[in-house]
Amino acid sequence: MYKQISSTQNALIKQLVTLSEKSRERKKTGLFVIEGAREISLAKKGGYTFKQLLFCAEIFKDNPTEFASENTEIIQISEEVYQKIAYRTTTEGILAVTEIKEHSVSNLILKIENPLILIAEAPEKPGNIGALLRTADAAKLDAVIIANPKTDIYNPNIIRSSVGCVFTNTVVTGTTDEIISFLKTQNIQIFSATLQDSKPYYECDFIKGTAIVVGTEATGLTEAWRTESTQNIIIPMQGEIDSMNVSVAAGILIFEAKRQRKFQ
Amino acid sequence: MYKQISSTQNALIKQLVTLSEKSRERKKTGLFVIEGAREISLAKKGGYTFKQLLFCAEIFKDNPTEFASENTEIIQISEEVYQKIAYRTTTEGILAVTEIKEHSVSNLILKIENPLILIAEAPEKPGNIGALLRTADAAKLDAVIIANPKTDIYNPNIIRSSVGCVFTNTVVTGTTDEIISFLKTQNIQIFSATLQDSKPYYECDFIKGTAIVVGTEATGLTEAWRTESTQNIIIPMQGEIDSMNVSVAAGILIFEAKRQRKFQ
Repeated sequence: MYKQISSTQNALIKQLVTLSEKSRERKKTGLFVIEGAREISLAKKGGYTFKQLLFCAEIFKDNPTEFASENTEIIQISEEVYQKIAYRTTTEGILAVTEIKEHSVSNLILKIENPLILIAEAPEKPGNIGALLRTADAAKLDAVIIANPKTDIYNPNIIRSSVGCVFTNTVVTGTTDEIISFLKTQNIQIFSATLQDSKPYYECDFIKGTAIVVGTEATGLTEAWRTESTQNIIIPMQGEIDSMNVSVAAGILIFEAKRQRKFQ
Repeated sequence: MYKQISSTQNALIKQLVTLSEKSRERKKTGLFVIEGAREISLAKKGGYTFKQLLFCAEIFKDNPTEFASENTEIIQISEEVYQKIAYRTTTEGILAVTEIKEHSVSNLILKIENPLILIAEAPEKPGNIGALLRTADAAKLDAVIIANPKTDIYNPNIIRSSVGCVFTNTVVTGTTDEIISFLKTQNIQIFSATLQDSKPYYECDFIKGTAIVVGTEATGLTEAWRTESTQNIIIPMQGEIDSMNVSVAAGILIFEAKRQRKFQ
């Protein structure tokens, strides 16, 4: 018999709502909420353990213990309580409360000699960040680095739009300066996607350790990425408009690198 | 002095709201609404003329006549009226009423011998369709074909998310059967992005006339595309998840074709 919560006024339930809504609360408590069986399963695979698992028996028909570790508290919640916390309209009836991990670039350890890394500077739209993380997972990149992040990576919209790939990738954050200095120390070449003094991407050699750097659609990359890069690269644009969706552009660059590396 | 409308109850204003909201109304009247200077400008470049141009002098500071043709009626509207019609939160104070064009695949004329075409079957999310159209514009594809469309292409969310690329591309629609028979008549090879009996995309030759076919993330392509294709192709997925954002996948495939064709 699991502990049961059926009141939306319960203190834990109120805290979970705040955790989902406020980055500040996540930072203060060191906790965040994961929604959905697939996302929870990928988080488990990614080495996260769960403080609490909350399930709604009317919706979630599997056994919640499959996600639990030794110290996980399993709580059964009413449908009303579930709807109060749940972030999505189509839901799966299960939530996990999890401790946030350290994501500082200074702790990043790369295990191979010629890593392939994606760097996104100050990405704004959770949907774009999610698509970047899905592409990074598909390409099995060695790391994704968010420079000057605008939000923490445990934003529920990022978890959702990445379909859990925020847990399957090695994701770290830092300031642009910290990251550039990390890359130089590690002898990783910097390919910044920016117009100035640039070369078509398909003429570049992605075999060496490489960081592909993309900025926002609105403002592009900051000065440091343009001047400190090994090579600025562009995707030739032959149509009427002059910008592409950032996750599409990143996908094109990453998979050209993969092609050159024969997907190894 | 332009004609002025300051009442939100005006019959034309009411019609424009319905045109933006309802595909059926667009079909019935043969009209649709374009919002934003950039989108209107790209539509003009794409050969559209405007029945009416409506501008709000408090917001739009340029001269609306730059978009007008001989028979365009220019109407000045109040801010209240503008806010009633406008679809976006950040707006530019100008709207155009335009006649829809014929977009049947049977009328598609390809001007080059080895065209490169993108086909999207039953795409659902306007944001994905918009990103596909932006990528198609950047690659200057010879056509974009929507198979079994779920909405008309003049949906305001598609116009907006494509940042007007719905006007810069040659976009046609048809049933999957019509399109497959068109491609066979034209001797265009069909590369369907689907797992079954597939080959890695980078081992395929995109130099000949080629249609790249993508389905939805949820259900993939229908049977006909899988069995009638020249070759089924895949992007190898090396991570934990098994699907990519459809516009990212299309971008990777299109730009591999562009690379092989040396961007000519």
